[in-house]
Amino acid sequence: MTDEASWQLPEGVAADVYDTRCPSRQVLDRIGDKWTTLLTGALSQGTRRFSELARDVPGISQKMLTSTLRSLERDGMVERRLHAAVPPKVEYTLTPLGEGLEEVHRGLRTWAEAHIEAIETARLRYAATAAGPR
Amino acid sequence: MTDEASWQLPEGVAADVYDTRCPSRQVLDRIGDKWTTLLTGALSQGTRRFSELARDVPGISQKMLTSTLRSLERDGMVERRLHAAVPPKVEYTLTPLGEGLEEVHRGLRTWAEAHIEAIETARLRYAATAAGPR
Repeated sequence: MTDEASWQLPEGVAADVYDTRCPSRQVLDRIGDKWTTLLTGALSQGTRRFSELARDVPGISQKMLTSTLRSLERDGMVERRLHAAVPPKVEYTLTPLGEGLEEVHRGLRTWAEAHIEAIETARLRYAATAAGPR
Repeated sequence: MTDEASWQLPEGVAADVYDTRCPSRQVLDRIGDKWTTLLTGALSQGTRRFSELARDVPGISQKMLTSTLRSLERDGMVERRLHAAVPPKVEYTLTPLGEGLEEVHRGLRTWAEAHIEAIETARLRYAATAAGPR
């Protein structure tokens, strides 16, 4: 494979998340992930080391951080740089593709924060009525 | 509980998805879900019956459709209306809260479709290099 390898949809076929055969459907699963959404936000602040990301995203396990960063790297959203040093220094940076995704993620994060009271209120009401007749 | 029951963040506390104690963190998990993202899009076309939604979101199982609709209803994003008829007719409609979420979801869906080629290309390159030295 050369550097020029690229993947393209068949001529005349548009990407469609409602088409089960379209790979964009699977991408939807990846990009909506909670940890992914939180990580791109942490990386939007600039290049970060693993330990810094673990601190910036409280609650993430080492294993989840490793696998989420690897998925982001694999999908072309994060660049991983290994610096020769003792101990080796590894840094993670959003690519332009990842920066675009981060903007969408910011929408998700902001929406969740802005509407948490409405959602929790709806849950209280649902719990109060769900026991009644449907 | 009265109709006026509402949930509020403690005075002076702002919602923060990076705070593990904030319920907006859990909401992030719900709203990023692939089926939720596809369902709000289908409902953005108007009120729908269960069978119509099953058709509009190919690949969703009856069980997943039932549980995703129930979550959306519980979170106040979808209104479920039962019409007395034989057989009973059940219809689902986005609430104003759900319409707002749908806009954010549209961003996710559109982004996935617009960038699927770049992502799949990144995956080919990652597969080609991952076997090499890291």
